[in-house]
Amino acid sequence: MPFRFLLSLIAVFSFSNVELAAKADSPNIVVIFCDDLGYGDLGCFGHPTIKTPNLNRMATEGVRLTQFYVGAPVCTPSRAALMTGRLPIRSGMCSDKRRVLFPDSGGGIPASEVTLAEGLKQQGYATACVGKWHLGHLPQFLPTSNGFDSYFGIPYSNDMDRVNDAPRGREPFWNPKVEYWNVPLMRNLEIAERPADQTTITRRYTEEAISFITKNKDEKFFLYLPHSLPHVPLFRSKEFEGRSLRGLYGDVIEEIDWSVGQVPQTLRDLKLDQNTIVWFTSDNGPWLTFNDHGGSAGLLREGKGTTWDGGMREPSICWWPGTIPAGQVSAELGTTMDIYSTSLALAGAKLEKDRIVDGYDLTESLKGKSKSPREIVYYYRGTKLMALRKGPWKAHFATQESYTGNNKLTEHDPPVLYNLEVDPSEKWDVADQHADVIAEIKVAAEAHKATVVAVPSQLEIPLSK
Amino acid sequence: MPFRFLLSLIAVFSFSNVELAAKADSPNIVVIFCDDLGYGDLGCFGHPTIKTPNLNRMATEGVRLTQFYVGAPVCTPSRAALMTGRLPIRSGMCSDKRRVLFPDSGGGIPASEVTLAEGLKQQGYATACVGKWHLGHLPQFLPTSNGFDSYFGIPYSNDMDRVNDAPRGREPFWNPKVEYWNVPLMRNLEIAERPADQTTITRRYTEEAISFITKNKDEKFFLYLPHSLPHVPLFRSKEFEGRSLRGLYGDVIEEIDWSVGQVPQTLRDLKLDQNTIVWFTSDNGPWLTFNDHGGSAGLLREGKGTTWDGGMREPSICWWPGTIPAGQVSAELGTTMDIYSTSLALAGAKLEKDRIVDGYDLTESLKGKSKSPREIVYYYRGTKLMALRKGPWKAHFATQESYTGNNKLTEHDPPVLYNLEVDPSEKWDVADQHADVIAEIKVAAEAHKATVVAVPSQLEIPLSK
Repeated sequence: MPFRFLLSLIAVFSFSNVELAAKADSPNIVVIFCDDLGYGDLGCFGHPTIKTPNLNRMATEGVRLTQFYVGAPVCTPSRAALMTGRLPIRSGMCSDKRRVLFPDSGGGIPASEVTLAEGLKQQGYATACVGKWHLGHLPQFLPTSNGFDSYFGIPYSNDMDRVNDAPRGREPFWNPKVEYWNVPLMRNLEIAERPADQTTITRRYTEEAISFITKNKDEKFFLYLPHSLPHVPLFRSKEFEGRSLRGLYGDVIEEIDWSVGQVPQTLRDLKLDQNTIVWFTSDNGPWLTFNDHGGSAGLLREGKGTTWDGGMREPSICWWPGTIPAGQVSAELGTTMDIYSTSLALAGAKLEKDRIVDGYDLTESLKGKSKSPREIVYYYRGTKLMALRKGPWKAHFATQESYTGNNKLTEHDPPVLYNLEVDPSEKWDVADQHADVIAEIKVAAEAHKATVVAVPSQLEIPLSK
Repeated sequence: MPFRFLLSLIAVFSFSNVELAAKADSPNIVVIFCDDLGYGDLGCFGHPTIKTPNLNRMATEGVRLTQFYVGAPVCTPSRAALMTGRLPIRSGMCSDKRRVLFPDSGGGIPASEVTLAEGLKQQGYATACVGKWHLGHLPQFLPTSNGFDSYFGIPYSNDMDRVNDAPRGREPFWNPKVEYWNVPLMRNLEIAERPADQTTITRRYTEEAISFITKNKDEKFFLYLPHSLPHVPLFRSKEFEGRSLRGLYGDVIEEIDWSVGQVPQTLRDLKLDQNTIVWFTSDNGPWLTFNDHGGSAGLLREGKGTTWDGGMREPSICWWPGTIPAGQVSAELGTTMDIYSTSLALAGAKLEKDRIVDGYDLTESLKGKSKSPREIVYYYRGTKLMALRKGPWKAHFATQESYTGNNKLTEHDPPVLYNLEVDPSEKWDVADQHADVIAEIKVAAEAHKATVVAVPSQLEIPLSK
């Protein structure tokens, strides 16, 4: 092997090839994932006018995670991190040339990756993906080729496939019409509808999800429910039109909140609430350049696309009545890659020394019984390690703003240093007072880089004609 | 009368001279008031690392008010608004020359004002003020001359009376020592301790408050508990040293959270929780120029001293088990002047047409039975009406940043216009799309100005030697 194992920094997992029954006490697993939701966009994370009673209730019944991160500040690599438990740099699901997969992309999640669904499937779970995939839209990359028994959803972002006669620039986003974006709605490998009627997409994803839970109530199941929204263009069903004080964006979040509420309600109705763990989070921060059609990172700095915390810290909730004590607020570190590792640990997946997995099992931390095993968060933009958080300290080796404005990369040596627990808004550089911390973080960064093996970028592969 | 009554815009109250017993069903009233607390500084308002379990619980048991304002963005006029139910422009408790009262001030709250304590006293309430007063420190202005049976506290800001041999500039704030500020701690009209030991001040205020509640458990009582903190310099007791991930500022908030928790606990222990209404809010937004010694306005713009929402919108909670439904989040408009009017209405105070009171009775709104009667919020800086909010719309006639940086007043005609429900961060000026709204707000501003009678400023009166 061309790299050193750094067992003190990274977790190492793999899976036997034997299909096993899930452990008797393994919970069902549900992961609800939003698209471009900001840290400040939920009532229970401080938004003044977006009403999220179902998410608020879920937080009150479970644990609200206030320092929970994603693996990348944009869609495709972030989703790859969740699905593989690995930083996208390891799977090739990132690039410095194209930040995400597009309809003209020919790449996708490599077959060599063990997805969360594959890991759970091996343990005997029934598996479904309902929603946005964005890890490759060719048949070999779609959910049903990656451990999911079924797939229903839009395979990439809802603003792709813009039709030629739609208005140019940002105009179509301000008054979105379904027909401007010729995105497919797929059932398994087939296109079921095109363009997808996005006005009913959240409702239809919800119905599909509830139907899957209900049908599998006597099995162990894994439901992955990645909503296509609130990514622009914004759509919501008739019932939610004009509902929110926050305008269209608020309507969309309030419909998602309604959707989220259906999950615990169904689980309670089926008496599955005590043996189902439900996660809620998003793929990256708010798309700030879309003004009021984008969300808010609350007190965090910047948003989607950047390695400021507003781009990568998400409003997250974990719910498992009877196991996770109610009403906790936890500032323990976590990431979506830990959802992978925690889920597989709960399912009793066998661990072998085969590949680097960047996730940790957070079970004891979620129960409030121990500190989080995670001490480090890596902030990548494409293939570049921009910043590293160790404990409360975040060092930026380089910074770059989001899509518009000052979009130039600036390198920092010494790095800019913030104490994120004291200064979550990343306002006061304290590098000159903490040379020791910077030295320690540099060592951690070098140790991490030594574990990274160059792999081809999946995002740069064109669609063959 | 030299001004027109605009009954559609303003509420008109006064009190009979007859001392009445409180109505049998009038609740006890507790107002907990912080100093310079930011909108984003509580867990239940989205702070990631400040732990406020007691405030979170209070919010879960009562109503969290997300669009609740103060009467001015700095201390003295804001407190005057709460205590008189009137904008400080009406009482003379504001000025363009001195923003607050200082130890060398000779003015204070005019005897002609009917304070909240006086109004409740007339209804037979036992009354106590425990904490920071800042409405005049001469005997005739102190709480015991303004309707309070007793007073225990520091009569003005905890950073006043700096001793001559303390370090200059901001140095003493970064490593505060009690002896740098020779502030008095008063019991009624006497100085009990000087300098006040600020490290134990939150604990001692709490003990005094709990003692007052306990002694008056068989009476109707009004407790006004204005904490001296988290105004700089920051102090906390030994028990809270190093407690918070957020550092010293977090320690201070977490001690206040502990203190807040003692109030409902005592009320439950005494079986008074069902007939006591408890308010929690603060005087103005965070003092941002003190870096990590100041708080965070969360997603709101700017802080203390400004008429941006970060200066005047506060994290507010109202708790009254059995009457206010549990677990509400209300975006209905309210102000501290409404605490005055609501309290007097609940106490059954007789209303006569004698003076303009700017507050509204929010009782039905708090119960979730109706919309708030408040439609307008006035944003004053000194004697200048800087901005006016009507419904969701806020028009800035002038803007000015806080203490440092660009501190120049800029007039705007047409005004800058924000929809605060859609755009709570005041980012996207929509004036050019809403000439009708601006016209309507201008009419409201003129109508309001016609109700204002010039009175001498109390803040400009020097202490006579």
